[in-house]
Amino acid sequence: MKNPLESIRESKPLVHHITNWVTIYDCANITRAFGALPIMAHAPEECADMTGISTVFVLNIGTLTTELIDAMILSAKAANEKNMPVVLDAVGVGATKFRDEMAAKILDSVRVDIIKGNYSEIAKLAGENAITRGVEATSIEADPRKVAKEFAKARSCVVVMTGAEDIISDGERTFVVKNGHELMGSIVGTGCMAASIIGSFAGVNSDLCEAAKDALCYFGIAGQLAAEKSAGPGTFKMYLYDEVYNLSDERAQSMMNFEEQ
Amino acid sequence: MKNPLESIRESKPLVHHITNWVTIYDCANITRAFGALPIMAHAPEECADMTGISTVFVLNIGTLTTELIDAMILSAKAANEKNMPVVLDAVGVGATKFRDEMAAKILDSVRVDIIKGNYSEIAKLAGENAITRGVEATSIEADPRKVAKEFAKARSCVVVMTGAEDIISDGERTFVVKNGHELMGSIVGTGCMAASIIGSFAGVNSDLCEAAKDALCYFGIAGQLAAEKSAGPGTFKMYLYDEVYNLSDERAQSMMNFEEQ
Amino acid sequence: MKNPLESIRESKPLVHHITNWVTIYDCANITRAFGALPIMAHAPEECADMTGISTVFVLNIGTLTTELIDAMILSAKAANEKNMPVVLDAVGVGATKFRDEMAAKILDSVRVDIIKGNYSEIAKLAGENAITRGVEATSIEADPRKVAKEFAKARSCVVVMTGAEDIISDGERTFVVKNGHELMGSIVGTGCMAASIIGSFAGVNSDLCEAAKDALCYFGIAGQLAAEKSAGPGTFKMYLYDEVYNLSDERAQSMMNFEEQ
Repeated sequence: MKNPLESIRESKPLVHHITNWVTIYDCANITRAFGALPIMAHAPEECADMTGISTVFVLNIGTLTTELIDAMILSAKAANEKNMPVVLDAVGVGATKFRDEMAAKILDSVRVDIIKGNYSEIAKLAGENAITRGVEATSIEADPRKVAKEFAKARSCVVVMTGAEDIISDGERTFVVKNGHELMGSIVGTGCMAASIIGSFAGVNSDLCEAAKDALCYFGIAGQLAAEKSAGPGTFKMYLYDEVYNLSDERAQSMMNFEEQ
Repeated sequence: MKNPLESIRESKPLVHHITNWVTIYDCANITRAFGALPIMAHAPEECADMTGISTVFVLNIGTLTTELIDAMILSAKAANEKNMPVVLDAVGVGATKFRDEMAAKILDSVRVDIIKGNYSEIAKLAGENAITRGVEATSIEADPRKVAKEFAKARSCVVVMTGAEDIISDGERTFVVKNGHELMGSIVGTGCMAASIIGSFAGVNSDLCEAAKDALCYFGIAGQLAAEKSAGPGTFKMYLYDEVYNLSDERAQSMMNFEEQ
Repeated sequence: MKNPLESIRESKPLVHHITNWVTIYDCANITRAFGALPIMAHAPEECADMTGISTVFVLNIGTLTTELIDAMILSAKAANEKNMPVVLDAVGVGATKFRDEMAAKILDSVRVDIIKGNYSEIAKLAGENAITRGVEATSIEADPRKVAKEFAKARSCVVVMTGAEDIISDGERTFVVKNGHELMGSIVGTGCMAASIIGSFAGVNSDLCEAAKDALCYFGIAGQLAAEKSAGPGTFKMYLYDEVYNLSDERAQSMMNFEEQ
């Protein structure tokens, strides 16, 4: 897709989130900064209706409870019925048995179109040997590119593994995104924000593998531009929002740094 | 009222909120920046007691659940008994049936002194034809000034409709506030913050229509001053807090831009 | 301890929080800025497991519910079994009967190693005459240094009273920390952040009294450095994160300002 940002700003996709209580503000605010419209709603009485008027559904299990998981499944079913993209951010899978079980419950109950996590979260979901330290990735034994590709093929979906290099695969194509800056790891929430951004790009591009790749390139580029001006995580986070807001497709296209394999 | 900011900073009204999980931090932080004291507490076992020691009660249904609505009604009843101002931010009314019903339940159960929302939220509450897209206003058919005035008269309260122009009416007087800057719409939460600020001003001024008008003028002025220095939503949000904190009644009075009709 | 920051950055203690919904992001983000790893998880099905893989457990009753209190007790018991430090931030004790009861329930059910609060919160916990205005301290009759020391001795724990001067006592030693800046009180959340930082320092120093003293000195120093560049609470909060991130043990040691009594 040539101009994803322009498309987002024009069509303003409504991105329904059921997410965690730590980064919920930044999930909403980065969605808005990219030009999409965030909506957060998790009451079981309305969540499926809210999904029904939305363009994309993003779910994030960072501070999951059984009630939230039930609401996520209600909303994801509504999204499935409308053939609307569903993005799962599998935060903390591999840290506790409960998270592993709840993530499995989601994947068994509904169709998820894009599964995102860090290296150990995705490896664990894919059945590899992996432990997540809280919400922090640990090193995994398997080759991450192979894990992403095979898991994507097995589930017929797009798999996104975030880390120093981001890996995106739909089982056929595999992209390795090299945009980004280490300061992105110095603040809490960039992973969650990435899922919201992937959702925003998926709201305007039916090629979900490309949408995820573009989203991570663009976000990484904004991070690179912000880092140039920043003296630490405080200034970095502020400039990150400015750079996202002021980014153009033209500038982003000239800075994209990824490989297709 | 001549010096609302000075009054807030002197008497430090305690503004009890039961609000949403997206903007709860900014609701608290902007209340503090204006000089009032925020308190957030929603447990049914204590919420009415917390209202009982407060000056104003602000409720916001952004991420409502039935449990939160019950807590809001408990607290609003305690506020009603003390003749304390109650401010309702009707976030997302018009987006789902559940929101419409819960807002109606609040309005049927307790006295709300100031009802705030964007154009389509208030129009929907007032029985007009209106749909809210998530939490985003859509254009409404009716004349917003007329909607605000008639709804205020019908409910004997102050109605605040926020948008490019903010409309405040108590059924007799109608103010149109023109302060503000478009960057305020580039970040999530300025609407919720506005309700907290209206609550803070209502904590020192028994003329609630004037309090709401002053609150929106002052907030808009801080937004204008912040926008002058800002390169995007990141820098804007940071400077907004500085400008609120450093604002004086004298400076604000010289920049107020509103009409009375 | 000579180099607490270096130790935190090297060993990256995992700091499990069950905290409030207002400042949860800043609790996580300041933990990360100091070099530790935050994890927030409160579901009863997993919270004890999450504590089990952590280094420290921090609990904060700012927006308590009975469900959250139950989860806190589950996690604190897991922490007690592992002899892991437990830090309690007694937010709002003295404001409502429910808070007083829930804080007492925690202290009766589990071992808390560090109890933190403002002057009136700790005075109330210690059985003194004290009222908290929402979450704001009010002046107390008793000598705060004496309250801290005697309460610490009675409970065989470390007591931290935050205010213009921070008082830390284990019943034998009493430290009075004079680092800090008044702008720290201009933003919401510095108290909650302080508990997270104390937790991070407690994750690398078994002398918990010293850990708490060092944590408050270092945080206060970052506040002083940030204040030099700041024009208000917006810029201050941003620079605070930068200063924490860029602080070195060497610089901090040269600026520490405390008395031992």
